[in-house]
Amino acid sequence: MSDFTDHLKPAHDGTSTLQAERDGSAINADELAKHLLRRDGFLQRQEKVLGVLSREQLFKKGQELNLSRPERYHLGLARAKAIQRIIRREGWGHADYSMAEYLTDEMSPYFLHMSMFVTTVREQGSEEQQAYWMPKILDHDIIGCYAQTELGHGSNVRGLETTARWDPRTKEFDIHSPYLTASKWWNGSMGRTATHAIVVAQLLLPSRDDPNTYNSHGPQTFLLQIRDAKTHQPLSGIAVGDIGPKYGYASMDNGYMLFDHHRVPKSAMLSRYAEISEEVGVFTRRGHPAVVYGSLTFVRGQIIMQARLVLARAVTVAVRYCSIRRQFSDRDSKSHDAPEMKVLDYPTVQIRILPLLATTFALHYTGEYMYRLYHESRSTIEKGDFGPLAELHSASSGLKSLCTTLAADGIEICRRAMGGHGFGGGSGLIGLNSDYLSKPTVEGDNWMITQQVASYLIKKMQQCVESPDAASKDPTDELFKHYLQNKDHRIPESYLDPQNGEIDDASIVSVFQWRAAALSYTAYQHRVEQKKPWTKMMIQLHALSRAYSEQILITNFYNALNSMLQLSIPTPEVLRICFRLFALYTMEHSATSFILTTSIYSSCLAAQPDSILELMSQLRPHAVKLVDAWSIPDFLLDSALGRFDGKVYEELFDMAHRRNPLNKVTFNPDYRSEEIVLGSGDGGKHILAKL
Amino acid sequence: MSDFTDHLKPAHDGTSTLQAERDGSAINADELAKHLLRRDGFLQRQEKVLGVLSREQLFKKGQELNLSRPERYHLGLARAKAIQRIIRREGWGHADYSMAEYLTDEMSPYFLHMSMFVTTVREQGSEEQQAYWMPKILDHDIIGCYAQTELGHGSNVRGLETTARWDPRTKEFDIHSPYLTASKWWNGSMGRTATHAIVVAQLLLPSRDDPNTYNSHGPQTFLLQIRDAKTHQPLSGIAVGDIGPKYGYASMDNGYMLFDHHRVPKSAMLSRYAEISEEVGVFTRRGHPAVVYGSLTFVRGQIIMQARLVLARAVTVAVRYCSIRRQFSDRDSKSHDAPEMKVLDYPTVQIRILPLLATTFALHYTGEYMYRLYHESRSTIEKGDFGPLAELHSASSGLKSLCTTLAADGIEICRRAMGGHGFGGGSGLIGLNSDYLSKPTVEGDNWMITQQVASYLIKKMQQCVESPDAASKDPTDELFKHYLQNKDHRIPESYLDPQNGEIDDASIVSVFQWRAAALSYTAYQHRVEQKKPWTKMMIQLHALSRAYSEQILITNFYNALNSMLQLSIPTPEVLRICFRLFALYTMEHSATSFILTTSIYSSCLAAQPDSILELMSQLRPHAVKLVDAWSIPDFLLDSALGRFDGKVYEELFDMAHRRNPLNKVTFNPDYRSEEIVLGSGDGGKHILAKL
Repeated sequence: MSDFTDHLKPAHDGTSTLQAERDGSAINADELAKHLLRRDGFLQRQEKVLGVLSREQLFKKGQELNLSRPERYHLGLARAKAIQRIIRREGWGHADYSMAEYLTDEMSPYFLHMSMFVTTVREQGSEEQQAYWMPKILDHDIIGCYAQTELGHGSNVRGLETTARWDPRTKEFDIHSPYLTASKWWNGSMGRTATHAIVVAQLLLPSRDDPNTYNSHGPQTFLLQIRDAKTHQPLSGIAVGDIGPKYGYASMDNGYMLFDHHRVPKSAMLSRYAEISEEVGVFTRRGHPAVVYGSLTFVRGQIIMQARLVLARAVTVAVRYCSIRRQFSDRDSKSHDAPEMKVLDYPTVQIRILPLLATTFALHYTGEYMYRLYHESRSTIEKGDFGPLAELHSASSGLKSLCTTLAADGIEICRRAMGGHGFGGGSGLIGLNSDYLSKPTVEGDNWMITQQVASYLIKKMQQCVESPDAASKDPTDELFKHYLQNKDHRIPESYLDPQNGEIDDASIVSVFQWRAAALSYTAYQHRVEQKKPWTKMMIQLHALSRAYSEQILITNFYNALNSMLQLSIPTPEVLRICFRLFALYTMEHSATSFILTTSIYSSCLAAQPDSILELMSQLRPHAVKLVDAWSIPDFLLDSALGRFDGKVYEELFDMAHRRNPLNKVTFNPDYRSEEIVLGSGDGGKHILAKL
Repeated sequence: MSDFTDHLKPAHDGTSTLQAERDGSAINADELAKHLLRRDGFLQRQEKVLGVLSREQLFKKGQELNLSRPERYHLGLARAKAIQRIIRREGWGHADYSMAEYLTDEMSPYFLHMSMFVTTVREQGSEEQQAYWMPKILDHDIIGCYAQTELGHGSNVRGLETTARWDPRTKEFDIHSPYLTASKWWNGSMGRTATHAIVVAQLLLPSRDDPNTYNSHGPQTFLLQIRDAKTHQPLSGIAVGDIGPKYGYASMDNGYMLFDHHRVPKSAMLSRYAEISEEVGVFTRRGHPAVVYGSLTFVRGQIIMQARLVLARAVTVAVRYCSIRRQFSDRDSKSHDAPEMKVLDYPTVQIRILPLLATTFALHYTGEYMYRLYHESRSTIEKGDFGPLAELHSASSGLKSLCTTLAADGIEICRRAMGGHGFGGGSGLIGLNSDYLSKPTVEGDNWMITQQVASYLIKKMQQCVESPDAASKDPTDELFKHYLQNKDHRIPESYLDPQNGEIDDASIVSVFQWRAAALSYTAYQHRVEQKKPWTKMMIQLHALSRAYSEQILITNFYNALNSMLQLSIPTPEVLRICFRLFALYTMEHSATSFILTTSIYSSCLAAQPDSILELMSQLRPHAVKLVDAWSIPDFLLDSALGRFDGKVYEELFDMAHRRNPLNKVTFNPDYRSEEIVLGSGDGGKHILAKL
């Protein structure tokens, strides 16, 4: 479509504006990018996979928001299948595959097959079962899913209602859903895609005393075929389908599944750690899969690393757009036609975006720390000994909760900071936001799993109180003992710089650690000494977990400041500003707990807002370079507002004027006629049929 | 589809669970509903309109999330047109029409026609213009929209780039878009529906000294035809269309529009307050439309009243579902098979939902107060004298900011509190959330308009400092003077109940008021005495506006406690618990500013969490009855989780198993084949064509 709009330009050029921003900071973004993304050759892999995907018509972005939810699944399946073909064509490994999923930026209908399904078979299948299933899985001859959660039970696995009753006569399990709430629910890839499923069900065995009564032996895992290999229809005795639209995950077929006395052979039960003896139906456990906890730490590390990139993506869009967007001139300007200010120069915009920019680095250094520890302890983990990881393993629940909350909230904060255009499809945040909003709930609800951290900390504190002289190299033990020895004098005022009343970096760490220890001690007193009911303490325990996790982020960020010194100036100093901004901003937002636990905070409370303002003004000139370093490609950003070249308005207009399918139809706006599309003569029947 | 799932029931019956909740509270929900929703016959009107709409096939809910965005517009237009026909068939008035839009629960493509378009013609058109246009508007012979914001300018109306250049030779205006950023943008109903538009453009008139140079006379409003009456195609010199998908408003055609020297006659300029003299092109203003500000207060009152119902809707879903959902038994229970707890009995769930339940009432009583003041002052407003409204008019910007933020954030807090099912389409919150997320931005960005309140408060404080003896009945003046007289002793400890260290209700109000005054005084010192730059103060000013607005909510809620005494017990006492919960929760979340401004807060800081916990446990038994009182019908809730009858799981399953179009198609999951729908032989071309 060629018309008079073709040669119009925006009043201010976005490209030169961003260039000026880049010229205004001496940060070497490439060097910083390599520092941040060196692990496992991330940057080179991103480039390689991007080169292939961006040439494929099927992976073209931009129309997802115009598709219906059923169409999104069609597209998702088409892409999932194409990725498998590409992998084989290009000779890619698993890391390349993961990169392709990351850049495709939607949940693949195959996702569960190469994650929970294969992992469970590998970890819980007997050698014989693995020999049978693994080749089929790796060749994608079957597509698997993982059916644990049910309509009535998510977090509480012990409460699952699906039963697997052993029939000693036929040597079969009878898989059954006694209630509607027993329906498997939410299980990804199950709705339309999977041919097989891991099903978690309560194992019921006949009582030895009375073969007509059955005893429950808790949840066990079974591998079942659920759909016919040819017709892809559910097998008899199985009702399975997609649960319908959700906030996000439009491309994913999260499913439901019910069983009507569906019978499977004995071999269906994964039996590396548990088995039924065929004759008498006796259940035997073979030890505990301790190694699972090692990989759990790795998975939690991944969640944090993913959270940092998700947040970096939202912040990239917000920083670039707000550097280009201008609105209002300075209120104190004397001149009548003073230029409009860039909105990123308003402190009310900075206070929303810049602390989040600092947060991306805070998350990064803790994620790095977890990976490093995991790799260092790998050999001992294989033997079931976590070594230094034990500590972090427990803490990782709190970190999962905190980091996914920060990222999920951060996306929306960035969006609102971008005003009207933030609400538009050109922000590129709609899909990211709706998908990521699942994270505070999945893999341990963020308000629930914090109990595990608190429970661990109370036990630790109890040990330290009861055995103050026991030797330990565990950092939490050291922290708690330091606290117990000094708790009567609180943190001394000497931490404050007498000159300007500011806290130095090391003291910031001490304050966060002190608060975590103090809250742990209070929780210990309430629970162990005063025997308070656990339920009544839950809010306090959640706050404890958060404080402890914040302390981990702060400590790791601070410890990493040294490793940054190798970077060229001014990067180390700018990252130090990020450290302080993240710390002071976090303190400000949890003021109450700092005031109740440390005297230091009250002393600098009044000066805090000015310190934050000053840090933000120091960080501001480097904002664009810092987000550049995160290296989120335009292909993934899929954002008019966040484009690397700053052509915000050109792209917004192009999306609307040239790529919007709604504009290809002319409507009949006269209410007297039932016709919707002008000249079609169809009285809205096409739309009524869809209701 | 009939199968073995037909007769399955959930393990626990939701209907009897909710009934037990209702039986457990003596609150008379009907009486409370009448108390809350008596204004303008809201309850009866809701029943009347619901009766009609729920019988119309076109208004059936449930498939919206399965439609594509273009289909959502088709449906929206079909419904908008149907409502016009229904109105005429049923003889409904404007309030019935508004109720129909509220219950339909999507932005109508006609929305701007009967709001900004008609209002602007009515307020800014000359008598002649009104005589010409109003009959066409009211008959819907034309469909109008309101084109103010542009691609490059939203908040800053003075920065608009579209020009209207007066050509004294032809007696026409030349409407033109000199830049791409001059494109009108976001304007609702403009993309595909409207035939006419109010266009706001910079008026350019030839200089009297040199007819070849033009002077700008600021933004003026013009009424233009934009599409042909027969073909509905854009007129020559106009490019107009829909801007594409957004977070929400899928049914609305927010548009863009550019002009290429499009010529319109002199009569296009709305000329009640401004006119061009034809001969010399002299511009004359006729006074200022002061009356507009009266209706602005009314509109802001509406925003608050809408915010309370939006929040009540999210809270209704969350309270009902969390009363039915069970997960985990009490950790301290000795019994091995203790029943699972209702999740609403967990304090970690209560702390997210119950303060929001209390907030719905806080918003209500301030909204009521604004309506009442508006109606009481109506006759003086007509004369341009606001009387007691002047005060509230200024404050209303802060209230808009605070109340829409509370409601927008509240929806997401409720959603997360519902765990996995909160993320599903059965929550009924997806559409509500994506639409309402526009509110913190539109009609004055929530971070920007707070400057107006702060500016007003600083001026007020300056007057009080400079003329402490000037008479005034304005409550802010009284508050500020009280503060100035007493500021050296802060709020006395005597506000605390010596028995249990708690603050009584009246003292809560004093504390909130004192804080607002103290922050106003600090802002006055910074700005007026120390001449701090406005920009540097922006975060502080935003916090000031919020504190001042919180004080208004608290004061009005407290003042309304008396009017509640007419209600039967225990309702007055339960609402008083809501008042205290809202207050203490708000204090806790702005701890820093309370600590810095009032001594009282520090004294009760440590006890605060326990007080909140206690208030929540007192409120808990009444939660279901309280949300019932908000009377949100199932038709509007459109939520499996929030159904009045508690059939949560039955409805979730029915949506998935029987009403999900994706389950009607069988797919080919084998990656070796490009075919997507099994047996179709179509190698994914149907989906490629949409990219």
